[in-house]
Amino acid sequence: MSLDCFVAGPEQSVKEPLGVGGEDLHKWLFPLRFWYKMQGKPGGEENASNDFIEESFANIGATIMGRNMFGGHPGPWKRDNPWTGWWGKNPPYHHPVFVLTHHPREPLRLEGDNTFNFVTDGIESALEQAKRAAGAKDICLAGGASVANQYLKAGLVDRMDLSVSPFLLGAGERLFEGVTDLHGLELQRTVAAPDVTHYSFVRG
Amino acid sequence: MSLDCFVAGPEQSVKEPLGVGGEDLHKWLFPLRFWYKMQGKPGGEENASNDFIEESFANIGATIMGRNMFGGHPGPWKRDNPWTGWWGKNPPYHHPVFVLTHHPREPLRLEGDNTFNFVTDGIESALEQAKRAAGAKDICLAGGASVANQYLKAGLVDRMDLSVSPFLLGAGERLFEGVTDLHGLELQRTVAAPDVTHYSFVRG
Repeated sequence: MSLDCFVAGPEQSVKEPLGVGGEDLHKWLFPLRFWYKMQGKPGGEENASNDFIEESFANIGATIMGRNMFGGHPGPWKRDNPWTGWWGKNPPYHHPVFVLTHHPREPLRLEGDNTFNFVTDGIESALEQAKRAAGAKDICLAGGASVANQYLKAGLVDRMDLSVSPFLLGAGERLFEGVTDLHGLELQRTVAAPDVTHYSFVRG
Repeated sequence: MSLDCFVAGPEQSVKEPLGVGGEDLHKWLFPLRFWYKMQGKPGGEENASNDFIEESFANIGATIMGRNMFGGHPGPWKRDNPWTGWWGKNPPYHHPVFVLTHHPREPLRLEGDNTFNFVTDGIESALEQAKRAAGAKDICLAGGASVANQYLKAGLVDRMDLSVSPFLLGAGERLFEGVTDLHGLELQRTVAAPDVTHYSFVRG
């Protein structure tokens, strides 16, 4: 997020999925080995930020995200050529993804063990389904802000990894909006890189 | 500030100057040598946070603050026994302080070279007056959020030292409210202590 807690800028669109200025939030990520690997490329920097993010995603067996993060357009799914996500034919998840939406849709199976399941009966149902899918592994709450805030408010987050980019966005999708406390999540460690600060919170 | 950018909690009052939960923002400060010294006491911890805060306040020749930080009550000053601040007979400033207010008042001279000047003609005038008073020294923009945001919006801040306490307040006085960019302030360094993260921004 930015210093002022935005995880995406304003005016999100298919052209600018992270809104105006939002991509800059992830600038620190793009040179890293973790990011290269996600694109199936060798190389990339290995540093404290890379260690942090690799550890963050080390043991994920299922992902939960909001409809806006899955993207495309608001409202009911289109019948012809429905939106299939931002990530092409072979998305980087390689495990079941649960998309919270108000609009029912059959599961979308893509290459590389990527299945997107559309959940219309709320965050607790999505969590239960993700738990069954992940087995002994962890569940990643990928975002965006709205879904993250819903889970935080409900006290359903066991660990929160936060990377703060040192600038303001001034508008957009705000993390912690309406969230008044962390329900027992306590700071475990801080990693201060030159261009980003990483925080790891765990349930105390 | 808190993770969600509040520098004071809600429901500020004479009894709770920093609002509900607001004092916890400064928990990291109370054991430090810097804080002990401010109370005229010997001792206190010397650590990375103490170095940061001592450096922050090392060369201050004048302070600017808002009426709400000076405190007491909103509206015109009372004629009998007017509010003289939170800090007793000998406040910890020991230099001229400029209080931004809509209500004119004669300067208040207290012990220990503490003079509170009440400025009714805006932030630029207060800055000019503080510059003249500080001479070659720096000016501390003490707060609260409203005055800090006004100076940030106007691009009149040359350095911003930020200490982030790792919890949420959920409501209160919000830093960066309505501030959309840092006007060239760039992160110079981050100091990650276990219970607080310090950031220093300077004009690039």
